Amino acid sequence: MTEPQASAVDLFPDAPDLARRVAFILEIDKLKQVLRRTLLLDASRVENDAEHSWHMATMALVLHPYAEPGTDLLTVLKMLLVHDIVEIDAGDTYVYDAAASQTQAEREERAAERLFGLLPEPHAHDLREVWRAFERRDTREARFARAIDRLQPLLHSYHTEGRVWRQNAVAAADVRRAMAIIGDSSPRLATLAEDMISDAERRGLLR
Amino acid sequence: MTEPQASAVDLFPDAPDLARRVAFILEIDKLKQVLRRTLLLDASRVENDAEHSWHMATMALVLHPYAEPGTDLLTVLKMLLVHDIVEIDAGDTYVYDAAASQTQAEREERAAERLFGLLPEPHAHDLREVWRAFERRDTREARFARAIDRLQPLLHSYHTEGRVWRQNAVAAADVRRAMAIIGDSSPRLATLAEDMISDAERRGLLR
Ligand SMILES: [Ca+2]
Repeated sequence: MTEPQASAVDLFPDAPDLARRVAFILEIDKLKQVLRRTLLLDASRVENDAEHSWHMATMALVLHPYAEPGTDLLTVLKMLLVHDIVEIDAGDTYVYDAAASQTQAEREERAAERLFGLLPEPHAHDLREVWRAFERRDTREARFARAIDRLQPLLHSYHTEGRVWRQNAVAAADVRRAMAIIGDSSPRLATLAEDMISDAERRGLLR
Repeated sequence: MTEPQASAVDLFPDAPDLARRVAFILEIDKLKQVLRRTLLLDASRVENDAEHSWHMATMALVLHPYAEPGTDLLTVLKMLLVHDIVEIDAGDTYVYDAAASQTQAEREERAAERLFGLLPEPHAHDLREVWRAFERRDTREARFARAIDRLQPLLHSYHTEGRVWRQNAVAAADVRRAMAIIGDSSPRLATLAEDMISDAERRGLLR
């Protein structure tokens, strides 16, 4: 193939609002390269934040009947779609890594400023608030989104014979502590989580 | 690491509804392994359907002000989150591959039966209807979702110097034909698409 000519075109001469939205869309492509600890279910590779975010949003769609009554699904989906975007700058923090967790909040706050700030107002502010609500966990929607965010890696670890848990010598007590927030949104999903943890403990997948 | 004991536990003795929802959630993990033609923006690899679905849903969130007035965002997000799931069974069909496109509808209809059928009713029916509406393009929500579904790979091809277009000797006329439906939802996004196509043509990225 011959090398193409460079573009000299301004696609948005009269549309700064659209230009900013497209810049955001192009920037967040990088989320596909932020790797997590969680394995795909066939254990062939770890997953990335973009496909993880899709999986969680689709889980929320399907598990919504188990959320607190009145939980607004649109708000939950927005949260789950955007909440990991800060990891483009701040990186993924493993939930059982205490040292990294200490600096996580500050790193992610700076990332939220920059990344959502690519968007025009009031959309930048809106998405930053959606992200902060997720972190604060003070609405039904945030409690459900956070429950899904905990349940997804638990399902994956449980169904891949606890490989990542065993590699990191994770303790059942630490998983129980991390999963406790599920019950604030959904007693039935909390029971499911506890049943998986107990079974994993019995089988030696957790220490 | 020692090999773990197999599980003999039934996690859902009294919850067939939840069992089916979790079976669906585990099955759709496979979407992370369905590869597309589209490159990531840094051209390091092709993207998969799961991260693509996340990118489109987040695009819809951000470009919603450019959709037809009254377009319901929640319905659009559901469509974009679930519409590619059929490709777990039916595979990805490249939009400029005429032969594969002929058998696509039938392969995808069978896939929709099986995959959404993992869910309990009425949810299985609901998601199958959401998927069919996307295919039929007869609602505002479907027109916007389909516009996003066309715009996302166009943005990627344009911003990776048309590498996939050049490898497949794609014609500008074919891209224009594929992109025409964008205008049914959003005149401004249709203009953006045409500006990118014209520029790509001028630079020799499209034949
Ligand atoms: Ca996270």
